[in-house]
Amino acid sequence: MGSSFGHLFRIHTWGESHGGGVGVALDGCPPRLPLEPAEIQLELDRRKPGQSRLTTPRQEEDRVEILSGVFEGRTTGSPILMMVHNKDARPAAYEHMKDVFRPSHADYTYEAKYGIRNWQGGGRASARETIGRVAAGAVARKVLRQHGVGEVHAYVSQVHGIEAKVDPLGVTRERVEASITRCPDPEAAEEMESAIDNARRRGDSLGGVVTCVAHDVPPGLGDPVFDKLEADLAKAILSLPACKGFEIGSGFAGTKLTGSTHNDPFFAEAGKVRTRTNHSGGVQGGISNGEPIYLRVAFKPTATIRIEQDTVGRDLEAAKLEGTGRHDPCVLPRAVPMVEAMVSLVLCDHLLRQLALQGAAGELP
Amino acid sequence: MGSSFGHLFRIHTWGESHGGGVGVALDGCPPRLPLEPAEIQLELDRRKPGQSRLTTPRQEEDRVEILSGVFEGRTTGSPILMMVHNKDARPAAYEHMKDVFRPSHADYTYEAKYGIRNWQGGGRASARETIGRVAAGAVARKVLRQHGVGEVHAYVSQVHGIEAKVDPLGVTRERVEASITRCPDPEAAEEMESAIDNARRRGDSLGGVVTCVAHDVPPGLGDPVFDKLEADLAKAILSLPACKGFEIGSGFAGTKLTGSTHNDPFFAEAGKVRTRTNHSGGVQGGISNGEPIYLRVAFKPTATIRIEQDTVGRDLEAAKLEGTGRHDPCVLPRAVPMVEAMVSLVLCDHLLRQLALQGAAGELP
Amino acid sequence: MGSSFGHLFRIHTWGESHGGGVGVALDGCPPRLPLEPAEIQLELDRRKPGQSRLTTPRQEEDRVEILSGVFEGRTTGSPILMMVHNKDARPAAYEHMKDVFRPSHADYTYEAKYGIRNWQGGGRASARETIGRVAAGAVARKVLRQHGVGEVHAYVSQVHGIEAKVDPLGVTRERVEASITRCPDPEAAEEMESAIDNARRRGDSLGGVVTCVAHDVPPGLGDPVFDKLEADLAKAILSLPACKGFEIGSGFAGTKLTGSTHNDPFFAEAGKVRTRTNHSGGVQGGISNGEPIYLRVAFKPTATIRIEQDTVGRDLEAAKLEGTGRHDPCVLPRAVPMVEAMVSLVLCDHLLRQLALQGAAGELP
Amino acid sequence: MGSSFGHLFRIHTWGESHGGGVGVALDGCPPRLPLEPAEIQLELDRRKPGQSRLTTPRQEEDRVEILSGVFEGRTTGSPILMMVHNKDARPAAYEHMKDVFRPSHADYTYEAKYGIRNWQGGGRASARETIGRVAAGAVARKVLRQHGVGEVHAYVSQVHGIEAKVDPLGVTRERVEASITRCPDPEAAEEMESAIDNARRRGDSLGGVVTCVAHDVPPGLGDPVFDKLEADLAKAILSLPACKGFEIGSGFAGTKLTGSTHNDPFFAEAGKVRTRTNHSGGVQGGISNGEPIYLRVAFKPTATIRIEQDTVGRDLEAAKLEGTGRHDPCVLPRAVPMVEAMVSLVLCDHLLRQLALQGAAGELP
Repeated sequence: MGSSFGHLFRIHTWGESHGGGVGVALDGCPPRLPLEPAEIQLELDRRKPGQSRLTTPRQEEDRVEILSGVFEGRTTGSPILMMVHNKDARPAAYEHMKDVFRPSHADYTYEAKYGIRNWQGGGRASARETIGRVAAGAVARKVLRQHGVGEVHAYVSQVHGIEAKVDPLGVTRERVEASITRCPDPEAAEEMESAIDNARRRGDSLGGVVTCVAHDVPPGLGDPVFDKLEADLAKAILSLPACKGFEIGSGFAGTKLTGSTHNDPFFAEAGKVRTRTNHSGGVQGGISNGEPIYLRVAFKPTATIRIEQDTVGRDLEAAKLEGTGRHDPCVLPRAVPMVEAMVSLVLCDHLLRQLALQGAAGELP
Repeated sequence: MGSSFGHLFRIHTWGESHGGGVGVALDGCPPRLPLEPAEIQLELDRRKPGQSRLTTPRQEEDRVEILSGVFEGRTTGSPILMMVHNKDARPAAYEHMKDVFRPSHADYTYEAKYGIRNWQGGGRASARETIGRVAAGAVARKVLRQHGVGEVHAYVSQVHGIEAKVDPLGVTRERVEASITRCPDPEAAEEMESAIDNARRRGDSLGGVVTCVAHDVPPGLGDPVFDKLEADLAKAILSLPACKGFEIGSGFAGTKLTGSTHNDPFFAEAGKVRTRTNHSGGVQGGISNGEPIYLRVAFKPTATIRIEQDTVGRDLEAAKLEGTGRHDPCVLPRAVPMVEAMVSLVLCDHLLRQLALQGAAGELP
Repeated sequence: MGSSFGHLFRIHTWGESHGGGVGVALDGCPPRLPLEPAEIQLELDRRKPGQSRLTTPRQEEDRVEILSGVFEGRTTGSPILMMVHNKDARPAAYEHMKDVFRPSHADYTYEAKYGIRNWQGGGRASARETIGRVAAGAVARKVLRQHGVGEVHAYVSQVHGIEAKVDPLGVTRERVEASITRCPDPEAAEEMESAIDNARRRGDSLGGVVTCVAHDVPPGLGDPVFDKLEADLAKAILSLPACKGFEIGSGFAGTKLTGSTHNDPFFAEAGKVRTRTNHSGGVQGGISNGEPIYLRVAFKPTATIRIEQDTVGRDLEAAKLEGTGRHDPCVLPRAVPMVEAMVSLVLCDHLLRQLALQGAAGELP
Repeated sequence: MGSSFGHLFRIHTWGESHGGGVGVALDGCPPRLPLEPAEIQLELDRRKPGQSRLTTPRQEEDRVEILSGVFEGRTTGSPILMMVHNKDARPAAYEHMKDVFRPSHADYTYEAKYGIRNWQGGGRASARETIGRVAAGAVARKVLRQHGVGEVHAYVSQVHGIEAKVDPLGVTRERVEASITRCPDPEAAEEMESAIDNARRRGDSLGGVVTCVAHDVPPGLGDPVFDKLEADLAKAILSLPACKGFEIGSGFAGTKLTGSTHNDPFFAEAGKVRTRTNHSGGVQGGISNGEPIYLRVAFKPTATIRIEQDTVGRDLEAAKLEGTGRHDPCVLPRAVPMVEAMVSLVLCDHLLRQLALQGAAGELP
């Protein structure tokens, strides 16, 4: 269980690092949406391994195939099956970890839960699983655009101790893609690059923070009380590999303000209700208020390192382990499209829910 | 939509601040569990208003009634309806806010979403909605105990700038309840008490952090890939009123470590796999690993304050507003049982899911 | 589990025959729908016991209370809690059945499933559970009307061997309510009345068939492939107590036709696609085609009879049992509002789903 | 929406008649189940076209591929993706139906719902969609066996006016497969064969009834009140293409009995509660009682015929249509494995739900 996400725009991902492939069945996509594989590929290319020297050297083209749900270039309302085949799989490289648990990986917990474990490259717990999310996220983003919702921009705002200095509202795709770190502050980007390079050379890894802003989100998205927009966003984000924290708006820092300095005063502008500050992060009472959605995501340092570590085997015997699998010394740059995908999926689902509500209430006084 | 939570242990809450009452229908509770209203009442009493001078003076007994699903003192497997009637409702006190949006409340967003709004005391967005959660959480906790899962202890670890100095693993219910702040560090508690008192006198409000530890959680709880334990916890927590952030394990601070210092080395103890550190917060790859679940929650300062604020009305005209409704100058003390309830609900749901999986796999090699 | 139904218009029923009451939490009702308790009461009065000499003599007013989700006479989009208290409960009357299984009741199966059983009046398996469905069905019907969907008329078309001779399309609420049998064919109704009277006198019971027609259902309702309109109708109907069969359109009789006589030829009329015959029963490929929805439902003879029967006790000892609880000698007349409610709930849910789809596809080519 | 089925054993089907392929993502399969493609293939071979002269001549090998969720011959608890590629697709054969609605097909309703339609071979409404169901059903059956549940045997019991005379409880897979009609009564089978041959020669088609028995189902499966076993079976069955009716136990015929003749007296045998008759069809109050599950399914005559029919085009102009696509003159023989698959899926889902409940209640008094 647990491989499904969303309510009206619903995805079911499948696949493992070293099996026949990975993919997603997307149910609930509106019919008649123009959709080409190239639009999906664009996002998969930002996620794929081997795209820069900062990422794992695993060579995967991650070429998407759309097997159903699209007819003559448009969606039909039927489930859309999108997949990529695994190519550069090297199961032998994992053979020595077959019976030993890698620290802070999912090896032990999968074993504890299922009593069986696909030990090749992380199996289901591999970040390759996010291919299905990124593919579906690209479709979600297209639906959002079609309905006038603005862009969703994520970027690397911190790596280890290095913080970017940027106005989150001014970040564009172009500025993000200008650096292989996906940090839009060129100075910080340079520092991050060195830090990641250094860590890689030492066989170590770094963590950091991704910031994400969703622009022009209409008021009304989010369903009280459990499906609050921030609750669904938090779940979406925390379901990403290596994620350890989530903040919306003022987040943890806001706990040190007072009500009188934290509250966002309302004013009217061009016939719209606006707020002067945005400590709320675009969400009040679980529902979007028309201001930009603003959130921050903590990613831990990659668990796979090339430094010897203490661990135990399946037989509970103490063991030493030195990671040799291909991996990212810092997941942050590749996490950017994943965060964008998850945020887009949540927004799209709630957009459809709100359109449903509006349609249903349409005739009512 | 959105008033349901859980998969196998499933709750449906209903009710508003000033309607006929608030409550919950709980479906999926195991049969034959001994259950008395007094066990529920105990938790509701920790949540109820008016319990100390730090909380809203609204006088509500919040006396629980169990209308179904329990027979001769034991659950039957049928839905359990638990409710409390609203008593100390004073709709007139809200009359002046009928057409004006309170800053950082849900007034505007409910209006934007539904085109109608129960303006009496926050309506559905009132924290009274959490009564149903706390009641169901008490049942969840009982199921957890019955299956050998340990206690879930939340406490106030920060109010405004004041931080508690305690070992999270040593916190007990007794120590938490020793102070009306629900902070188990007596010195910090005293400071927090003054700070909250001060804020109340100024008509202002404070935010803070609740920390929560779940003990003796067996390995194996949590479902990859979207229903990871931390993802469901994040959703549960972010669905609480006034919540702006969630961390598990090392959280945001952990982003400044390296893989070699962050990874939790495994060792074996008494036939069990353990970790030497717990940066993972008891969860790896979305599944509990047997270590204590450790999480932190950010609550913003209460939005209702008695200080004049700028806002607009439904007619988009600028307006001044001074909160006069009864409210908490700091939600933290009453948030403690809410956090415990949500964590218990998530753990109970995943416990049942894991028992289901074990039962299903029981006969297999 | 299992007490929830619907996807966008979602109900959660709760309550037992002899507990504190029975009711429903309805989530997903569109906001701003005018709603008065009297509208709900109207349908509950058609379902309630004691309404004629053909029904159980249990005296219940079944007076509905709306505890949440309605503000100043209109729905708010929040969950609507509707309930009735149990009044004429006589648990003592069931004392002698505490340890003996009534044949063809749910006594044994509940015991087998849960290891505990509320033996007072059928507990959760009592037909009183349908109160929540009928209440929610009344709301569903109102939503349907507001969106231009026509009426849903069910009627008794067969009792034991007596069949009504009527044109299903000409049946109106008035004609149905003209007889306490709820059979719109006056002659058949008279015969049915005698037959039921006879059965009651003998302490025996009768079964029969309810036919239902939904008028002016727009094309497009129903979701391939599992949530076909007929599939959701079948589930809704088979979830009613005592139901043993479901047919749509030509049903079992249609299996004896050939494709050339069974197919419904299309023609155009007033700019609409119509069919000359309606063997499809208004549904093709799981989606409504604009013709009347036509279905038939088989109800078995009431299991409770006043004739001595062979059975066993919880101790597996052979026993004799003579039903003494109050009951209906024939459930058909009271089943009519239940069938209408379930059909209305399904149509309303699929109407909202279709409005959602149309809203989502609205901007697309 | 609508392409998912099940709660704990959950399937998501995808694919169209003439796209890249058809398949299913199965989530919730217990881990460690030995599983080989050959076991799936066995069932797909019974469903595939071209298997006898009674079925459509479309040549498809329907060779299954398992792309995920199985490792070293055993399931891992991760989603299992099973698919077949479409080979013998002839879109050109459907070109002339692109703008004309085939009577009693889903052409018009898909167009009405989605405003777009994959007109090649029925698109999503093609019976090829059931490949995913049959594949998943084979896995379900395996889980059932592993837990001691007996076999699920369906067979053709009626074609047009010809009825089989067999004891449903004595029907075996061997007897069913002995005839290409899948009718276990050799005489009736021969008559059916001629009748179908005749219909095919005339370009016409026939309907009929499939009967299904599930043996050795333990008591306790099924969840009151909406997820009653018979309700979920009815939904599963009515979701099959061409299905128009469902009966369980005494069904429509039982409506002509009285309570005293219809009730199934209990007796004890070998420490088990049994019933002397089985009018209940193995289900009481929505829960299995340990007797064989017995149900009957009505299938209409195939809509595709080679006889000229009146219809209209998308432009609403009257048109004549003569089916030329490849099709089955009678769907009954190939419907047998589909019915078995759906019944197996429902039983498996409810078995897992009951194992979950038992696990959850395990420690309770």
